[in-house]
Amino acid sequence: MSNTKPLPLLDADVEPCCPPLTERPFTAEEAVRTAAMFKALGDPVRLRLFSLVASHEGGEACVCDISDVGVSQPTVSHHLKKLKEAGLLASERRGTWVYYRVEPAVLAAMGHVLGRVTA
Amino acid sequence: MSNTKPLPLLDADVEPCCPPLTERPFTAEEAVRTAAMFKALGDPVRLRLFSLVASHEGGEACVCDISDVGVSQPTVSHHLKKLKEAGLLASERRGTWVYYRVEPAVLAAMGHVLGRVTA
Repeated sequence: MSNTKPLPLLDADVEPCCPPLTERPFTAEEAVRTAAMFKALGDPVRLRLFSLVASHEGGEACVCDISDVGVSQPTVSHHLKKLKEAGLLASERRGTWVYYRVEPAVLAAMGHVLGRVTA
Repeated sequence: MSNTKPLPLLDADVEPCCPPLTERPFTAEEAVRTAAMFKALGDPVRLRLFSLVASHEGGEACVCDISDVGVSQPTVSHHLKKLKEAGLLASERRGTWVYYRVEPAVLAAMGHVLGRVTA
């Protein structure tokens, strides 16, 4: 839990699923895959939770760390599960709590689609 | 219509609305603003249309240029309007047709949120 290294968002060595949006029209399959990631971040509560986890000490957080987003703990759990299903968060149970952390490869893939410089 | 310059996605000089997701937890207001942009790209048909416009010759396209996304022209128009309302596309009427082009500042802002390198 004392891992305070920054998340490897800018040097993640991943094979992105899809080209930048400006390169060529997406195929139907590429659009389905990529839209699912954008949709997961398209809800204000989920986006706040995601930024809470992503910016938390050590790059991970559990429901026990989250108290000020204005929704109940079951709702927090529900949204964290949705983010996990979309592949944006990974989780690990330790004792009583499930800890969530960001999947840097997915953020990198979304950044790539938006034309991010990854070099 | 012969403007074939690449879109200024990587050097857009914009003031982003929000910090990178990994920097600190988003406020409620930041989350609402940013989630709306992600939500607009969170639909497969809208994402295909967006990539079609973004990758089209000259960086712009009208409904007359779009024929192969598997939905009717009124549906295409509906989704283009949604993307415009979300601030992702700008439009201009010329003669019979409305032409759409990508708002590079918005893509840059989304890339910034995802931790994109803008230098």
